[in-house]
Amino acid sequence: MKTTKKFLLPDREIPKEWYNVLADLPSLQPMLHPATHKPVRPSDLEPLFAKGLIEQEFSRKRWIEIPEEVRTLYKIYRPTPLVRASGLEKALDTPARIYFKNESVSPVGSHKLNSALPQAYYNKIEGVRRLTTETGAGQWGSAISIAARHFGLDMEVFMVRLSYDQKPYRKVVMQTYGGRVIPSPSNTTEAGRKFLAQKPDTTGSLGMAISEACERAALDPDTRYTLGSVLNMVMLHQTIIGLEAERQFEMAQDYPDTIIGCFGGGSNFGGISLPFLRHQLAGKAKFDLIAAESTGCPKLTKGAFRYDYGDSAGLTPLIPMYTLGYDYEPEAIHAGGLRYHGAGAIMSQLLKDNIIRAMDIDQHECFKVGKLFAQSEGIIPAPESTHAIAATIREALKAKEEGHEKVILFNLSGHGLLDLGAYEAFLNGQL
Amino acid sequence: MKTTKKFLLPDREIPKEWYNVLADLPSLQPMLHPATHKPVRPSDLEPLFAKGLIEQEFSRKRWIEIPEEVRTLYKIYRPTPLVRASGLEKALDTPARIYFKNESVSPVGSHKLNSALPQAYYNKIEGVRRLTTETGAGQWGSAISIAARHFGLDMEVFMVRLSYDQKPYRKVVMQTYGGRVIPSPSNTTEAGRKFLAQKPDTTGSLGMAISEACERAALDPDTRYTLGSVLNMVMLHQTIIGLEAERQFEMAQDYPDTIIGCFGGGSNFGGISLPFLRHQLAGKAKFDLIAAESTGCPKLTKGAFRYDYGDSAGLTPLIPMYTLGYDYEPEAIHAGGLRYHGAGAIMSQLLKDNIIRAMDIDQHECFKVGKLFAQSEGIIPAPESTHAIAATIREALKAKEEGHEKVILFNLSGHGLLDLGAYEAFLNGQL
Repeated sequence: MKTTKKFLLPDREIPKEWYNVLADLPSLQPMLHPATHKPVRPSDLEPLFAKGLIEQEFSRKRWIEIPEEVRTLYKIYRPTPLVRASGLEKALDTPARIYFKNESVSPVGSHKLNSALPQAYYNKIEGVRRLTTETGAGQWGSAISIAARHFGLDMEVFMVRLSYDQKPYRKVVMQTYGGRVIPSPSNTTEAGRKFLAQKPDTTGSLGMAISEACERAALDPDTRYTLGSVLNMVMLHQTIIGLEAERQFEMAQDYPDTIIGCFGGGSNFGGISLPFLRHQLAGKAKFDLIAAESTGCPKLTKGAFRYDYGDSAGLTPLIPMYTLGYDYEPEAIHAGGLRYHGAGAIMSQLLKDNIIRAMDIDQHECFKVGKLFAQSEGIIPAPESTHAIAATIREALKAKEEGHEKVILFNLSGHGLLDLGAYEAFLNGQL
Repeated sequence: MKTTKKFLLPDREIPKEWYNVLADLPSLQPMLHPATHKPVRPSDLEPLFAKGLIEQEFSRKRWIEIPEEVRTLYKIYRPTPLVRASGLEKALDTPARIYFKNESVSPVGSHKLNSALPQAYYNKIEGVRRLTTETGAGQWGSAISIAARHFGLDMEVFMVRLSYDQKPYRKVVMQTYGGRVIPSPSNTTEAGRKFLAQKPDTTGSLGMAISEACERAALDPDTRYTLGSVLNMVMLHQTIIGLEAERQFEMAQDYPDTIIGCFGGGSNFGGISLPFLRHQLAGKAKFDLIAAESTGCPKLTKGAFRYDYGDSAGLTPLIPMYTLGYDYEPEAIHAGGLRYHGAGAIMSQLLKDNIIRAMDIDQHECFKVGKLFAQSEGIIPAPESTHAIAATIREALKAKEEGHEKVILFNLSGHGLLDLGAYEAFLNGQL
């Protein structure tokens, strides 16, 4: 009964640098310009992104300093706890030791704030006045709305219509933080009008919403675009998750052999796994790294590795990635954050090179384990995060079957308190 | 920029004992039996409560040991952070230093779990199989549902009809944890049928729901009643908040002079203030202790101190308290947890003796400061907690006006992520 449940670090131990895995990987294939199909130069991206962020996108420096203003705001919720999932272990009767990094304690309820704060910061110091973005489940939109508020920036969010309707309260969160929320596709952009003309009853997709937000930024010199996943610089910011976890495992006097995250574009899985992976790339450790995606949008397990657009209108650079096709319309699953057709370039390359592996999990299994996790650990997980829990449980039960120990770390990317409509449908047998 | 934002204690520093203020107060007037009007004896309460809890209700022992099983479950979310509200201070431009104890990090989103866990525990070890209770906003119902699940007990929750309709997702939380939720007044109890006959379109009240839950427990020997506020033993359990805060102020090298909590029955205000008050009772300190109640249910500022029932049907003992009358129907405010006609006996006596003072605050001011807090500290507060924030801001602005320092501690009793319908109404100008 004396087991430590949570491993906490004080504010002052928030890492001072993010880890850039590009320093330790062979060069990735370059992004290509959508018009010329030539490699994208940093200056090509300036209409869309703050220069400080573009520099990070292309950087091969191993450690990149976290600005003090960002670290100060990280203190609102970071370091997040590393938690021993003793209740879940007991429920599964497994010899595996299970830990999770609890990113749900962020005030917006997910890990997305880790990248929202630096993205708002770099825009602010470069004199940008307005930010625009898209959001699926609303996690990213909430995060960038409060980040924009902290830095006094105006914020506009294109929210995928399906989530806008399924999760009306996410919209209220963004509005309370001062964001303007527009259901996508909308009539306010040319791309949106085109999507609506093609299919008036579309429920939207992240791809479409990205097109709208990019168009807005491209047409207004005072506005920049922000993105919550896929890009190298987002993976960079999210490494704070794994870097903290590493120190917390020292406190726990334990070490993971299996690391699991759910997978939409790769931000939370990259964030928790890349800092550990650096030891494997240096030949000093070996991990089983598992990306848990949705069967409703299976880019990693059923997609192809090739160049594809990041959005549905073909406005973004071509990215070398696992993709289901830029015009793919994912199933109307409740895990809105996983409804994206492609995977970020870094994570795609790692999958291609068999450094990570992928698992696809269907919605029913996800909510079943979500309920089990709620009853055993107290926290109702986000539908996205239930994918990581499902993969964790599969691995923990395999360990039990095979009678060997295993130390699993998974990322609890967010809580599900704004997804209770989905839980209600599950409890009523409708999923 | 180097200021510490959060003061964290490790798991092992969760207090080992609760503080019982009854040891340091003159005897309270006794509760009276509803039929005989004679002082209630412990045995009179046995049909309703576990014996271990009744013993605590009457105890005058200063320190009461927290059972190891309860401490283990406290580790899921405790110790909670003490946070410097630097963002709010900046927004107010006040010389006051403002701290809050962040009870919203509990997996159910409020401080209510602090008493739910011991209440479920003592019932479990005495062989009780089923628990029943009432809930207003749903915070207590969520907490006791997961607590019952942790100890393998069956759970039934009578939820005030107004909240049941206003906050449908609270019901889903309780159900996900395995609780059965019944809107109150209901047809399943004699008391409920009586209320419905008197007023078929009633939106219910905590008083009515208590009557229903008590009746259920009284009629079934395998069922016990649980209560989330008012009682001495609930104040006892909640002192863990203030006891932790005290140690955290040592880390902060600071000390509060003003302590503020919102007030429904007294549980969160008692929890944060009583451990500090013990130094005042010992003549070693002096605090300004402020209970912030709703103008929609102003028992402290407009009620009378007298004997009254705890429920609407007159089934509970008569309690010496500030009350608006047991048949009072509070306004349909969104802060469902504050819609209770009376104040617990301890807190009532302290108000009568001018040891604490009270402030009533209207809903519009509350949501206005709720939005300000969300934008400055990132966390969307529960409607109940916004009352504490409003009182804090009044005091901080007074300090600014008078040009003196002040150190304010308030309890952020919960987050508002399940109250976004209320925020939406506010943002749309409907409150």
